[in-house]
Amino acid sequence: MFRLKHLHIDTLREHVIMIHQSAVRAGNLGFNPLDRVHVFGIDATGKRHEVIGVLNFCRDQLVGPDEIGLSDDAFADLGLPSGAQVNATIAPAPKSVDLVRAKLQGERLDRTAFDTILGDVVRHRYSKVELAMFVLACAMRTLDLEELVDFTRAMIAAGSRLDFGPGPIADKHCIGGVPGHRTTMVVVPILASLGVVVPKTSSRAITSPAGTADTMGVLADVALPPAQLYRVVKEVGACIAWGGALDLAPADDILITVERPMEMDTEAQMVASILAKKKTAGATHAVIDIPVGQTAKVRSHAAATRLAALFSAVAAQIDLHLEILTTEVRGPIGWGIGPRLEALDVLAVLRREREAPQDLREKSLYLAARVLELVGAVSPSGGYRAAQQALDSGAAERLFDRIVQAQGPRALPPAAPHRCVIESPADGRIREIDCWRMSRVAKHAGAPANVAAGVKLLRTVSDVVAKGEPLFEIHAQSAPQLEFSRTYAAAHPNIIAFGF
Amino acid sequence: MFRLKHLHIDTLREHVIMIHQSAVRAGNLGFNPLDRVHVFGIDATGKRHEVIGVLNFCRDQLVGPDEIGLSDDAFADLGLPSGAQVNATIAPAPKSVDLVRAKLQGERLDRTAFDTILGDVVRHRYSKVELAMFVLACAMRTLDLEELVDFTRAMIAAGSRLDFGPGPIADKHCIGGVPGHRTTMVVVPILASLGVVVPKTSSRAITSPAGTADTMGVLADVALPPAQLYRVVKEVGACIAWGGALDLAPADDILITVERPMEMDTEAQMVASILAKKKTAGATHAVIDIPVGQTAKVRSHAAATRLAALFSAVAAQIDLHLEILTTEVRGPIGWGIGPRLEALDVLAVLRREREAPQDLREKSLYLAARVLELVGAVSPSGGYRAAQQALDSGAAERLFDRIVQAQGPRALPPAAPHRCVIESPADGRIREIDCWRMSRVAKHAGAPANVAAGVKLLRTVSDVVAKGEPLFEIHAQSAPQLEFSRTYAAAHPNIIAFGF
Repeated sequence: MFRLKHLHIDTLREHVIMIHQSAVRAGNLGFNPLDRVHVFGIDATGKRHEVIGVLNFCRDQLVGPDEIGLSDDAFADLGLPSGAQVNATIAPAPKSVDLVRAKLQGERLDRTAFDTILGDVVRHRYSKVELAMFVLACAMRTLDLEELVDFTRAMIAAGSRLDFGPGPIADKHCIGGVPGHRTTMVVVPILASLGVVVPKTSSRAITSPAGTADTMGVLADVALPPAQLYRVVKEVGACIAWGGALDLAPADDILITVERPMEMDTEAQMVASILAKKKTAGATHAVIDIPVGQTAKVRSHAAATRLAALFSAVAAQIDLHLEILTTEVRGPIGWGIGPRLEALDVLAVLRREREAPQDLREKSLYLAARVLELVGAVSPSGGYRAAQQALDSGAAERLFDRIVQAQGPRALPPAAPHRCVIESPADGRIREIDCWRMSRVAKHAGAPANVAAGVKLLRTVSDVVAKGEPLFEIHAQSAPQLEFSRTYAAAHPNIIAFGF
Repeated sequence: MFRLKHLHIDTLREHVIMIHQSAVRAGNLGFNPLDRVHVFGIDATGKRHEVIGVLNFCRDQLVGPDEIGLSDDAFADLGLPSGAQVNATIAPAPKSVDLVRAKLQGERLDRTAFDTILGDVVRHRYSKVELAMFVLACAMRTLDLEELVDFTRAMIAAGSRLDFGPGPIADKHCIGGVPGHRTTMVVVPILASLGVVVPKTSSRAITSPAGTADTMGVLADVALPPAQLYRVVKEVGACIAWGGALDLAPADDILITVERPMEMDTEAQMVASILAKKKTAGATHAVIDIPVGQTAKVRSHAAATRLAALFSAVAAQIDLHLEILTTEVRGPIGWGIGPRLEALDVLAVLRREREAPQDLREKSLYLAARVLELVGAVSPSGGYRAAQQALDSGAAERLFDRIVQAQGPRALPPAAPHRCVIESPADGRIREIDCWRMSRVAKHAGAPANVAAGVKLLRTVSDVVAKGEPLFEIHAQSAPQLEFSRTYAAAHPNIIAFGF
């Protein structure tokens, strides 16, 4: 028997169990590091509690020889208090890993198989290596359409689901890769001001300098419990919340922890994940934006067309009305990159300020128009004009303010104290800005962890500049971060490409 | 800047870097959990030290907000003292991961590619997920022969190499899966007593209840530094040492940490790993034993034949004289399973005791005969008789004693204090004993971590038993372990199969 200890270690959703090496030496256990172990105990009412995790050994005071330490998630899932008496045994690999192995060897998986696998994934029974096996199995042995539909349905079944009635309930989604692309915060109030219900849930940044939830989080609370989210949508007709607080796609939240470092082309995973999230968020109609560009996530129109076909085929099977847009991208959208700077862009567009970024305004109007036409809120080609009127009349601005008030307003944080300007290395017209590298500049400066950090573009695509003129400004919370980012930018002068 | 702290955490060769969450919040860093970070500092002589690892966040006293904690291996590799001033930045993924991704997409890898990948692997630059990608790439997109040869050569180049001259230098290897199979400790002294040089290096248990290094470790020191190993071999003509202390296959030692939990059929990996280890241990001639059986690692003669062809083809390319033996297995070899109990079997065979296990004796003679004939130490069919004479005359026993003395003798540990007998559930002849499950019984009892723990067979294959007669005895260091093992054995009465 061991005493339970809560270890305040954030292991990114992996359950880590820590025991002292001398406990093994003393002959209490025959464990090896990285064994999967089962920790269990009984509470005051006689109920059995258990959790499975990966074993780590330690040799110092983190846990004593008579203790078992559990990382945050594992401790919460076990549900016993610190100091409780617990025991541990070796736990076999979940049986569903055999299915993953079969898929890796070329076999098909059916709906039951996907349900079983994702069920074990959301119970944290898979190790990082087993998660990697599953993601690679889906990425390499291309799933056929039926499998992809089954995978998507299993993703939907593995999480909670919001319900706003039969609808139409609208949603929009951009597959990402474009810094500053905060159209959601403009599109949602336009739609809601025209009577379309848009219970929008967004993610935080995974690899980017800001996700919509990070940027909205600068202006309002975004971690809304389901009851509050329903109340906001009922009252205002829309919300802009963080999906992560709602358990809408728990399997995806776990798979992403290994998918991200792999940087593999996992189309199937992307389609299943996005459509499952739209469905569990209660949407009946959705517009998906696939930006195509040399430095974006999708780099050719052929790839975009293939991806669009996959989205449409799966959406038809899960009863979701979908429109796919393929858009061109030659650089970031808006002036700001990073949560605070992007929020300022959104406010400028909603407030029709003179320095508001025109590209953010126009792309938002275009997307809003497509949603309005998809849900039938306007005549078949009346979307753009309706959206424009909603924005220019101030209706969208007022609706955005109501969303902020309903979710809980936050004071805008001050500008980052450390800043420097990067000058143009050449004369000429800006043909393109490298989305991926400009994101790195912003991330090196501290975004999104430091909400005021990031990049403010001073010139953008199609502008003509002279050598030595200011191109962009880096914002950082500390001098070392500013230096780190500036060094990266200086080492990559081709972030800005000149020409036509 | 942070103060360096040594964390006594055994992460099984993964470099873990721990920082306090408040250090991120305070705006010093823009890191996320599981980011790959680069920790660096300067020593008193002005030399720069650096190490790369995977970032974990903590929120309690494990590290302070001004500290960076490094796990054992990472701390050792950085080579700076506790309290040293260090800094940290995000480290990009090693470029060689692009090669792994290409292999996953079906491309070929050449020698340079394998060298680059394994070079990064041994420098601990790969995360667990990236290691899994490489192992799966090799397992799924079957390497062609040229690739497998290049992979093997890269494995050889990535480690240190022992050199005992032009030879013949003999070695033997069993691919495993048979508990109690401690033939090495009998074969090596037989060979050396006949003048054959056998600098034998073995592994510790990976998934089994004992490896040869664990069993030899009960009787003598096995972690010999290279200088001592050379001295022992020069003096006695042989050694039985632990390979892990010699850095002979560092890439393999790391790959195995993800390969083991995958339980994938990674033939290419096995061939490259075994042959690279024979080569770096200085062997010129080797006999490889592939046991085939329903519960062994290789389960059909067809699979054994395919594997043997791979071994032979690669060995020919790296200038290693190889003989492959395919042997039948219907259960464990010897009476004991677990380090101490197996060591007693070996001593009984060498000492020609009456209760010595005949199967261990006969298989050892058979293997010794093949090696003697391969290196040309005897006439083409004189191996068995020569081996038998070496054993029966006591020459092998005396040579084994010299090896033990030269390596450093150890006192035999006492028998495990907690024991119980499992009785036969039926009448009849024992047709087979399940190797895999019987290993589990021994591991549940605490082997190999507890050297005296394990299983002692009281009856073996081909014996006729009556219901209720003792079949085997479980040995454990503690009552809970005995109970754990006994429960497993009781739940699997078919560990012993009856019939013909």
